[in-house]
This record gives sequence, structure tokens and C-alpha cells, in this order.
Amino acid sequence: MSKCIKSLVAVLALSLSAAALAQQAPKPEQIIKWRQSVYQVLAWNTGRIKANVEGQFNKDEVVKAANAIAAIANSGIGSLYAPGTDTGKGWHDTTVKPEIFTDKKAAEVAGNFVKEANELAKVAATGDVAAIKAQHGKFTQTCKACHDDYRKKD
Amino acid sequence: MSKCIKSLVAVLALSLSAAALAQQAPKPEQIIKWRQSVYQVLAWNTGRIKANVEGQFNKDEVVKAANAIAAIANSGIGSLYAPGTDTGKGWHDTTVKPEIFTDKKAAEVAGNFVKEANELAKVAATGDVAAIKAQHGKFTQTCKACHDDYRKKD
Repeated sequence: MSKCIKSLVAVLALSLSAAALAQQAPKPEQIIKWRQSVYQVLAWNTGRIKANVEGQFNKDEVVKAANAIAAIANSGIGSLYAPGTDTGKGWHDTTVKPEIFTDKKAAEVAGNFVKEANELAKVAATGDVAAIKAQHGKFTQTCKACHDDYRKKD
Repeated sequence: MSKCIKSLVAVLALSLSAAALAQQAPKPEQIIKWRQSVYQVLAWNTGRIKANVEGQFNKDEVVKAANAIAAIANSGIGSLYAPGTDTGKGWHDTTVKPEIFTDKKAAEVAGNFVKEANELAKVAATGDVAAIKAQHGKFTQTCKACHDDYRKKD
């Protein structure tokens, strides 16, 4: 093969790889949509636990909700804060503050969220309503801590 | 208390209870939004597993994604198909077909989805790429089966 053809082949291969990568990588809009969806699913399950500990208690529902919260918390939500998703629209304009992408404290806040979510799943399994209520409070405080620092106000 | 006042008090108490209930029960729009969000989160995690078994494999990411899928599948998604949510808008107009609310086969389709999601989490834990790829295929077939029968076409 001539040097020229070799170069052409190399360039073509690179272009194809780039195209394949571009195809695989989700767009920022899609990532923001997933991120917003994650928090909706967390809100659904958090609300279910609240309704159970404040009203008629159904252990089975609480355990299911707490397990879903923990599995989502453990799933690597951080990857949904990918570069390019600090602004933009998913289901709606993102309400994230740019500080979450740069602030060192953000990892700590996220770590607390994961820790209390896992504790909530453990406590839910005991069926002890008072303990679940207390742990649910601790867990939602970690949600609030993040909202306070890293979510834009309306 | 006169009979009249007693009746007034009783009526007032009933109204307050009804108001409290109305406040607690999520609106159909909110329920549809949660439902649509659940499927987005499932799509995110399903896509992650696909990318891993077709590209560079990271067991940790696959396990996290599969555990999230299983916990959501086990969380009681059926409750998000509440009365009054057969039509209406969440993030967008629901694409659900009304048959899912009445068709006896819907429970079977949902059961298969839960079964294969739990199996996917089990297989993911082994780290066997070929087995995960096969089980991921089985799982997504249960998604497709539901879409084929109960999701409106564009």
C-alpha cells in the first residue's frame, strides 16, 4: 500500500471510531432527562415512605420503596453530572447550580446521601415504624442539604 | 350542643378529612410523571449494561445498573397505573394504551419483566459477560413485549 493510501485508511478508521463514539455517548439533553427522572423516582419512593410512617403502615411497601432508593443511590448517579450538563434542558431547564461540578464539598454531600439511603433500607427491613420515621428524616435531610447548596431557587 | 351544631361539626369534620385525603393523594399528572420517570431510569440503566457488554466491560457498573433495575422492578410500579392515569399528561402525553388497565395478560407481561430483571441482577453478580449479554437480551425482550402490546405507536 502506498503511504498515501495508508494515511487515508488511518484517517478513515479514526473518523469511524469518532462516529461510533459520538453515536454511543448520550447527548447532554438525554443525560439531564435521566438525572431529572432519577430524582422523580426518588421523590415517589420517599413520599411513599412518608405516607406510610405518618399514616397506615405497610412494611412491604416501605421495604420496596427503601430498596429502590438505596439501589438508585448506589447506582452511580454522579455519572449523570457529566461535562456539558451544567446547563441545558432535559424535561425542563436544569435547576442545578454550576457549583456542584466544582465544589469539593459536593462529594461529601453525595456521600451522606448514599450512606443514609443504605441505612434507610436496613432500618426499613426491621419494620420498626419509629426507627424508620427517624431514619427517613435523616435521609431526607441529605436531600435538603444538596438542594440548599446546589439547586437553584424558583 | 344542639342537633344542628352537631351536624355542622360532623359535616365540617368530614370536609376536613376529605381535604386531607385530597392533599395526600398524588394527582394523576404527578403519577404519570413518576411513571414516565421510572421508565427513563430503567432505560438509562439498560443502556449502560448494553454499552458494557458490547464495549469495554466494567463489572461494577453493570452490577450497580442491574441492581437498580431489579429494585425498581420490585418496587411496585403497578401502583403508578392508578385509576385516572390511562390518559393525561406527565412530562408529556402518556403513551399507554387503555388495554393495560383491563387486559388480564398485562399482569403476566409485568410478571415476566420482574422475573427477568431479578435474574439479570443475579447474572450480573457473576461477572460472566456472555451470560450477562444473554440475560440482558431476555430482559429487554420483556420491555419490548409490553411496548408491543401496551404502548401507542408514534
